[in-house]
Amino acid sequence: MLSPEQNERYQARMKRKKAIVDERIAKATEERGVLILLKGNGKGKSSSALGTMARSVGHGQKCGVIQFIKGRDATGEYLFFKDHPMIDWHVMGHGFTWETQDHNEDTQAAEKAWAIAEDMLNNPEYGLVVFDEMSYPLKYKNLMVEPVVEALQARPEMQNVIITGRTMPEELMEIADTISDVKDERHAFRLGVKAQKGIEF
Amino acid sequence: MLSPEQNERYQARMKRKKAIVDERIAKATEERGVLILLKGNGKGKSSSALGTMARSVGHGQKCGVIQFIKGRDATGEYLFFKDHPMIDWHVMGHGFTWETQDHNEDTQAAEKAWAIAEDMLNNPEYGLVVFDEMSYPLKYKNLMVEPVVEALQARPEMQNVIITGRTMPEELMEIADTISDVKDERHAFRLGVKAQKGIEF
Repeated sequence: MLSPEQNERYQARMKRKKAIVDERIAKATEERGVLILLKGNGKGKSSSALGTMARSVGHGQKCGVIQFIKGRDATGEYLFFKDHPMIDWHVMGHGFTWETQDHNEDTQAAEKAWAIAEDMLNNPEYGLVVFDEMSYPLKYKNLMVEPVVEALQARPEMQNVIITGRTMPEELMEIADTISDVKDERHAFRLGVKAQKGIEF
Repeated sequence: MLSPEQNERYQARMKRKKAIVDERIAKATEERGVLILLKGNGKGKSSSALGTMARSVGHGQKCGVIQFIKGRDATGEYLFFKDHPMIDWHVMGHGFTWETQDHNEDTQAAEKAWAIAEDMLNNPEYGLVVFDEMSYPLKYKNLMVEPVVEALQARPEMQNVIITGRTMPEELMEIADTISDVKDERHAFRLGVKAQKGIEF
């Protein structure tokens, strides 16, 4: 418990803080869809995109997800979201490069995924679209960045887009509104803990 | 398209990469619940915790959420998850310190939230519990860190815990299995874009 004197000083400090916060809020008035990049080597990028999707669906917005890397079958997120009437979920692409070991097949898979992604970017019904691990085919040149930038810039004005992946090409960084870099400070995997259901997949 | 020669070199490189990945996977054999901290000033920490929760529920695990900061009414995530039979969601705590401007009331609210959190940490039925913005009452001394550390260490063996918030006390960092630091590289808010439904709340 604070004493009455401490509480008074505390309140004065908080009032000053509130004035600063309120001023910042008053300055942000533009209303439009944003492009969010979630990059970096840390855990939590895809899950963050999907948590934001839950938030959008909670407000009645239709959402689309393209997974550009086909990893495990029946991940928890897929099982949870796949049948929701407001969500279109596409597991596309190929496996990780070191699993498939076939660059040309990876490219064909990436192109198919991009065709669906492009349709979503042309459709104003989608309030949010998530391109999960899209940085991956971009990095390995299975997908060119120029048409992606073009389609993102021509998308419906109120549409939000989240792209996840370790490394983002400079061209996407330039046009992004929000960029979070998720840094791996520690990971249970390196402590010897097996990847587990409900946490990693 | 790669030429046959390029493809051969590519395959050899990917085979070497696969060997390294497989070796790492083989070494991680421990199975237990993990404590994950999502910290930093960047966007995406709470949404990441909730995306992971969707993943856990997708695998049939019961989950609990305590929101330690009561912000806006009826956020999208609350509307989306609140009625799910596998999820217990508690919006607890008080508003941000600069809104409430009352340290003693903030403390009472934090203590009530912690009482529910502690029950969850005693209940092996919860596969995952999320303590959203818990770092906040810890930072402002509305909640002491010692009992939190004790309860975390005594929790059921297979229970996963995610704690989010900007700054994490050293005591939690010490006992965490996974720590991601989300760095704010850019934010639409500073570009003048208003906080919007489905993205920020």
